[in-house]
Formats: sequence, structure tokens, C-alpha cells
Amino acid sequence: MSPSPGVADTLIHARWVVPVVPTGVVLENYSVAITQGRITGLLPQHEAAGIDAQDVIELPTQALLPGLINCHGHAAMTLLRGYADDQPLMPWLEEHIWPAEAQHVSERFVADGVELAIAEMLRSGTTTFSDMYFFPNFTAATAERLRMRCQITFPVFDFPTAWGQNADDYISKGLALRDDFKHSDLISIAFGPHAPYTVARDVLARISTLAAELDSVVHIHLHETSAEVLRAVEEHGERPLDSLHAMGLIGPRSQCVHMTDLGDQDIQLLAASAAHVIHCPQSNMKLASGTCPVATLLERGVNVALGTDSAASNNDLNLFGEMQAAALLAKLERRDATALPASQALAMATINGARALGREQDLGSIEVGKLADLISVDLSGPETQPVYNPLSQLVYACNGSQVANSWVAGERVMIDRELVHVDLADLNVRVSAWRERINGGGK
Amino acid sequence: MSPSPGVADTLIHARWVVPVVPTGVVLENYSVAITQGRITGLLPQHEAAGIDAQDVIELPTQALLPGLINCHGHAAMTLLRGYADDQPLMPWLEEHIWPAEAQHVSERFVADGVELAIAEMLRSGTTTFSDMYFFPNFTAATAERLRMRCQITFPVFDFPTAWGQNADDYISKGLALRDDFKHSDLISIAFGPHAPYTVARDVLARISTLAAELDSVVHIHLHETSAEVLRAVEEHGERPLDSLHAMGLIGPRSQCVHMTDLGDQDIQLLAASAAHVIHCPQSNMKLASGTCPVATLLERGVNVALGTDSAASNNDLNLFGEMQAAALLAKLERRDATALPASQALAMATINGARALGREQDLGSIEVGKLADLISVDLSGPETQPVYNPLSQLVYACNGSQVANSWVAGERVMIDRELVHVDLADLNVRVSAWRERINGGGK
Repeated sequence: MSPSPGVADTLIHARWVVPVVPTGVVLENYSVAITQGRITGLLPQHEAAGIDAQDVIELPTQALLPGLINCHGHAAMTLLRGYADDQPLMPWLEEHIWPAEAQHVSERFVADGVELAIAEMLRSGTTTFSDMYFFPNFTAATAERLRMRCQITFPVFDFPTAWGQNADDYISKGLALRDDFKHSDLISIAFGPHAPYTVARDVLARISTLAAELDSVVHIHLHETSAEVLRAVEEHGERPLDSLHAMGLIGPRSQCVHMTDLGDQDIQLLAASAAHVIHCPQSNMKLASGTCPVATLLERGVNVALGTDSAASNNDLNLFGEMQAAALLAKLERRDATALPASQALAMATINGARALGREQDLGSIEVGKLADLISVDLSGPETQPVYNPLSQLVYACNGSQVANSWVAGERVMIDRELVHVDLADLNVRVSAWRERINGGGK
Repeated sequence: MSPSPGVADTLIHARWVVPVVPTGVVLENYSVAITQGRITGLLPQHEAAGIDAQDVIELPTQALLPGLINCHGHAAMTLLRGYADDQPLMPWLEEHIWPAEAQHVSERFVADGVELAIAEMLRSGTTTFSDMYFFPNFTAATAERLRMRCQITFPVFDFPTAWGQNADDYISKGLALRDDFKHSDLISIAFGPHAPYTVARDVLARISTLAAELDSVVHIHLHETSAEVLRAVEEHGERPLDSLHAMGLIGPRSQCVHMTDLGDQDIQLLAASAAHVIHCPQSNMKLASGTCPVATLLERGVNVALGTDSAASNNDLNLFGEMQAAALLAKLERRDATALPASQALAMATINGARALGREQDLGSIEVGKLADLISVDLSGPETQPVYNPLSQLVYACNGSQVANSWVAGERVMIDRELVHVDLADLNVRVSAWRERINGGGK
């Protein structure tokens, strides 16, 4: 069923359209038509004038671009934003985050934390996020209720947490969840073994087999710090990347998160196996983890996408900040101001994210036939004037607060910065109650 | 004349007051009284209830803090924001920025560019900025008209530009300007020799003598890249810092901007001479210049303040971004997540800036007797909830758009994000006209 080119559900006339594919292109005074949740037209405004649309939206000072894709996070932890900062990684986890989680994480905590995260992400241009956290069933239900697209990777550990007893328990709960959401238009469920040092090798091998059978994504924290890599070499005689590769866990369905401390051999392996790297620059800086050689990876043909990591280690879920941090950090690391230009940073936050999620047929660019996951960014404020090149403004001058509208599958979920499905006043009351409970130490 | 403690011009009741001095303190439910442009009271809200004020302002979800101080920039260049990005430093300057400046910089360019910069700076929490650019008389007049505090360092070069013929001409124009503004409450004028490689040694020596006689600040780009340092060693047999020190230009009135490529001996010299370092982390990253060892400088007792540099190399004038970048970069550089904690980053953007400007008696903290240069930041949005520690939110979660109100010398110059003295619509028309002229290549 191909919709008539003369009609559309929604027609958006924008000052600029940044389709992301092809790279670096900016279309001036263009229009996007949407029908049944998909992009059905991308054409100059004067040609679009004849389209008969139910809803016509004029954005004379805004740039329309694909919704941003946040490829790594733990959304519910937004309730712990700023709970413990300026701490080394292990004391931060062992003395602050893990005890707070052990005491407070529950179904309700996850539902409220995810709602707060979604509010922040939509207001800063994200329309798809990937998540790994306890009670992923509540993350999935919340995202679906608020009409946000989400890849949920259910966590697997060797030890008990509030959500599971052991690896078998996590996997069986996760697979049941996968079944529950198999017909969802917004939610996909995949494997999230936490890290090579928290999941036993036999469990990782089992996940490898299951993921291959189900053709499922595997999302894993990998090479977050050089200490992690060193410890693995001492214990197992090989680097974590090599161990996972030997188990069949490094391939085109693999999302390797962080990836600092990479040598040339690692980069070759990633390129040859077509695995995806999820770069979280602000988290890596804040926790002093190390640097991912993003510019080199991209040059070698490795797909690199962006993630915020959790608000407890960032402390925001704003991909505009990550685009800028990724571009600036790459230039500094390479001592080359031409490294990771604006168009590449924007691709990392959109089409590369879609590729990492295995959704490049549907997401990540403005092309006819793709899902209408879009955002519009107002460039008329003094912060983004004058506009010589919208790509420069988007990556180097925007801070996320210029995002004015968002669409997910053609539904406008933010209208002039007002969220359609989130009641911010009510949410604030619930979030404040969590803060008091967590600060007070009560349950 | 000491005003009566029972009356005030303005009384602000805030959910939090972050005085910056003492370090790390957050006062809950506090009030600040302002009389005749100065802070006359800092006390708990219940004690402030009895003060009779003309203007009472309630900020039940906001943090009140000292206005931020941007210690390095070239405000008029905001008209060239995004004009040429992702270029190496010298081609960026020689093929793009300098030709555009040669063709377009004029009194009107400076007035409009500075107005755009001030609009952006006020909206992101800056109440004092330092500037070095051509036609500084127009920068000064614009800042005074818009009620923004400004340290203007008039540029000195060895070569002609639109504003001057040679070093003598720059210096005599600058000293005349100093005289013109000697009674200004908002504007101070000081020496801005551009850099050791653009100003001859005899001119630098003359500036050293004049600055000492006038007890004036000297603001200079120094050690921006290792290439600059290397070239100086090859040409003069010594590092630029040592050359300037020998001329008497490194001391408590010196503002040394950038300061990458520092060795232990340099750090000792800076500490011993009580010179100030102005750190511009985003500019240093974007131009791939290098890193300033901020955490080490602070440990050794060197005063380090923050600057944005120009919007042509940043690409914003937002000190919230610089605070975050400085903190994150220091953690990464030191591989220590405890390096440069939030309280220290905030101090760099406030009291350290005041010290660098020689204005610590008047600016940089909320203390009775100081000038009432203040900002309030709304922490009620989803981006900054929940609030465990306002300092963490200010440095790691705010992006500048949460700044709601600004006061300069007690005058409220931004009210709920509306600028009192800038007509943004009219400004946008002028800025767009500049963009068309510059893009078209016409004069």
C-alpha cells in the first residue's frame, strides 16, 4: 500500500532540513510529508505546496533533523543524578550507587526514574534510547506509555539483585519480556550481559548461542577502563575483547560500550567483525575512565554511535552535549582540529545509532520510507545566530534547549517544548519524594 | 555611609544561596538584601522577613549565585560564529577569519557583534566579561549602554589593522580610551598585547613599564600551542613565559590566556609570581591546541579563571559549558575522577575570575559589601531534578538555559529570561544583515 503523493497526514515546512544521509547536506526551505507514521515526501517547499495534509506545520526559523538516538544509558538512575559526584569509579559504585540501589530500586523507582529520563531526553532531542537496568519490564511499559522508542537490553549478572537471583533467572525473565513485547511498534528487547567481569564465561557463551539463534543484539560494557583490561589479562591471559570474540560475541549484532584502551589489533578486530562501538565521552571523562579513539575507529570503518550513560555519571541525558564533547575530545586527542567534523558528530548521534541498533532501514535519517522520528531545532535565539552553516550550529552552538518539537512514528510528542504525554508538575512531586526517601535512607 | 539593616532596595528570597566563598557552602532558604547596588544582607529567610524592601523577589525553585565572570573573549567575533569550523588553527585564521575581519570589521560590526555576545552571555549567566578586540571604544560603549560589566583590554599588534597603524597608535588610542572610561562604574580598560609572536619585544617592554606605572592589568595570549613555544625557543632561545617574565610582564596583574604545554618550571614561575591563568577548555579542544594542567596549577596555588574565547572558536559564550568542560577535562587528564570537583569549577567561573581581574574586593562571591552582580538558576526542570546537591547540578547538569534572572550592580538586567536592555528581534535583523553581507563578500 503506497500512499498517494498528493496527500499526507502531516506536512512540515522547515527553514532547513538536515537529512543526515547524504552526509553534510543541508536542504533550504524544504518540506517533509508524513503518512501513517512514515516519511512519504522530502521536497522543496514550493513543490510541497500542493500536498493536501490534515496537519500543516510551519517552522520558518527551525532545522528539521532525524530524532537523536541515545545508544547507552540506565534511565532509571536519573533519580540518582548528582547523588555522589567527584568520586573515583569503584568507591562511587561500591560506597554510594550500589548501596542506594540495593535499598531503593523497585518497580516504582524504575517507572518514575524512566519517566524523568524520557522527559529530559525528549526535551533535548532524543527520540530513541537504549537502556540496561533492573525491572526492564517497567522501563518498557513506561516508554510505550509515553510513546518513546526504546531498545531494552535486559541485564544479566552472576549475582542476585532486586530483579533476579542468578544468570538463569535474568535470562529467563529477559526472554519472557522479549516475548511480551514482540509485537510492540516501539520497544525491542535484547541481551544485556553487564560486563565480562560480572558475568561468568559459561553464561556469556550461553548468551552468545541464544543471541545467534534469536538473531538478537548483545549490548555489553567493554574496556571501560585500562584497569579492567589489565585485570582480565592477569586472570584469563587475554584481553576482554579477545575473550568475547572467541565466544562469538563480537559481530554485527554486538554493541560494545565505552571501548577505551584500544590498540591497533583491537581496532582491526572490531572492523573485521563489523561490531558497533558506543562512545560515551562525558561519562568517560567524568569517571576518568580513558578515551575511545573515535576518529581512528571511524577511519577504519568501524561504526561508532553515541550514548550518554546514566545521569548518575554524566550528569545529563543530553546528546547535544555528547556530540560536542565527542567532536572536541577527538580533535584534542588527535591534535587535529579537522578530526571528527560536525557532520560526523551528527551522524554518530543519528544514522550510526540506527546502524548499531540494526534499524538503519527505519531510523537515523530523513529519507522517504523511513519512520517519521524527527526533531526540530530553533536556531533563531542569540546563542545560535548568525547561521552560516546549520550543521556547525547544531553540533558546536546548540545545548539541547533549542529543540522545539519531536515526533515519534509521526506522532508529535513535544509541541513547542511542551511534552504531550508527561505531566511535569506531577512528575516533580514524585521525584522529590524519591529524593527525600533516598536522602533520608528510608525505604 | 552604612545603610540601615532594616531596609533594602531589593530583597531576594531563594531556595538556595551559593555564596562561593566559603568554598562548597550551600545555604538553604536564604535571602540576599541589596542596597545602592551592593549586597547589604545575607541571612536566613525567616530573619529577613522583617526587612522593608521596595522590591521583593521570591525564587522558591532557584539557586542564587554570584554572576559568572568570562575572563577571555573577543565578543564582536560572535558575528563569525560557525563561519569556518573544523579547520586547523593557521588556515582557520589565515584563510577564513583574518580575511573576513579585514573586509568587514568596523565600528558598526563591533557594536552589533558585542550586543549579540552580551545577549548570549547574560542568558547563560555571565555578568562580567573581559574583551580584546578592535574598536574597543565601541565595545565599551555597548557594554555600558546594555549595563554589562566589562574589562576591556585594548589590542596591541606590530602591524596595521582597521583600528590602528602600529604599536604606538594602538597604545595611544588605548590610553585615551582608558582616560575616557576612568569614571565608569562598569568598564575598566587595560593592556591587551595580542601575543609574544605578534608584538615586538621592545613594545612588550614598553607596555610592561606603562602597566607598572598605571598599576594596570596586562592580558595576553600565551602558550596557546606547543608550536608557539617551540618556535619561540628556536627564534629567541627561550620559552615565551620566560621572555615575558624577564620583561616584568609576569606578575599579579598578568592574565595569561591558554597556557598549554607547561612544564614544572613554568608552573613554579607562575606560582611564585602570582600571575593569573585564564583557561579556555572548549577553545583549546576545538582548535586542538593542547591542555592546560589546571588541577596541578590550582594545587600549586596558581589562580586559574575561565574564559570562553570567541564564538568563532568555541562556538558559544556559555560559561556553564566551560565549567563542565574544565571539570571533565581535568579528571580525564589526571585520570582521577576526584580532580577539579564541582565547587572548584564554580570558583574558577566566579571568585577566581574576580581575582584575575583584580576585583576580588567587589566581585565573585555573595558577601556583604560586595557589588550585587548575581544570577539565579532554576533547578525545577527535569534536566536538574532531583536536587541532592545544587553544586553538582550547577556544574554537571545545567547547560546555561536554566539561568532565569541576572543582576548587575543591583539592577535586574534579565527578568525570567527576558533581557531588559536588548531588543532581540531588532538585533536579529541586524545580525542577519551582517551574515548576508559577510557570506556575499560585499562590504
